[in-house]
Amino acid sequence: MRLAEVVKLQNRALAYLTKADIAISPKEHREIEVADFGLNDIENIGLELVVYENNDRYCAKELVLFPRQICPEHRHPKLSESNIGKQETFRCRWGEVYLYVEGKRTRNPKAQVPDKYMKYFTVWHEIVLQPGDQYTLKPNTLHWFQAGDEGAIVSEFSSTSVDESDVFTDPHIKRLPAIE
Amino acid sequence: MRLAEVVKLQNRALAYLTKADIAISPKEHREIEVADFGLNDIENIGLELVVYENNDRYCAKELVLFPRQICPEHRHPKLSESNIGKQETFRCRWGEVYLYVEGKRTRNPKAQVPDKYMKYFTVWHEIVLQPGDQYTLKPNTLHWFQAGDEGAIVSEFSSTSVDESDVFTDPHIKRLPAIE
Repeated sequence: MRLAEVVKLQNRALAYLTKADIAISPKEHREIEVADFGLNDIENIGLELVVYENNDRYCAKELVLFPRQICPEHRHPKLSESNIGKQETFRCRWGEVYLYVEGKRTRNPKAQVPDKYMKYFTVWHEIVLQPGDQYTLKPNTLHWFQAGDEGAIVSEFSSTSVDESDVFTDPHIKRLPAIE
Repeated sequence: MRLAEVVKLQNRALAYLTKADIAISPKEHREIEVADFGLNDIENIGLELVVYENNDRYCAKELVLFPRQICPEHRHPKLSESNIGKQETFRCRWGEVYLYVEGKRTRNPKAQVPDKYMKYFTVWHEIVLQPGDQYTLKPNTLHWFQAGDEGAIVSEFSSTSVDESDVFTDPHIKRLPAIE
């Protein structure tokens, strides 16, 4: 993705944060991470992240999802004897988000996944999060999520984040910054 | 503090959260912790807390401070060989907060501490936090904070919270729920 495109998406993410009355600093605005997961299809598969803090004990981020944007299925593997994998809590701040985790498949789920990606989405136990709702995932379990028609803002509280160790179901995915 | 008074303060805290467009669930509303630190002077020394998540790895809370309310000076001591003390990040979401930490004393600080408590406030290095600003404290260092004239809402991201182990400068303080 070219820099101009990244800046455009950063500004679009800022507009959502502003709509939700969430203030970020100018530096945080410049550093919004635009994640396209190497698929070059940001409108369908992508995520915009403001990393507030990520230290060796805990991490806090704001996740911005444009309407129907999907964070693709992945898990946070065990990293060492003392780290059984990243644990995270998603708290919906604005909009609506459909979170899918391991467990009984939900009939008629609200998510809409483009056909070409469908085979890389294997867990379908649905949790609907509206503002004020939250869900804590077990470490090393598969999950993915999609914003509703209006988009969504989700606070992520977690143990230390090591994004590059995430394991994605889709083998084409590369979890690197989208910028060229 | 009597239950009716706690409920009144919980509702007052909810009004601040609503003003700041921060949604909490009905259960979280009922469970807002009103901390008067055993001093029975909540307008001066007190804090209202929504605990979103507190597990053995990380913690996230929303702190509500009424106008000029003070969270009194304390530190989070070393708890074990593997836990050097709670580490925390304060992020201002709404209003203004004056945070004081160890370091060079700030001349003409913005905080206003009632005379009778003054001797229990010993660190005066001031950090002013406005919406979008944040500060991460070193574990086991003294700190305290006061909201500005409009009150404040502060997100706290941290390692596991064990409030009852906090060490306060004022020996009269008891960090227990305010309810009788």
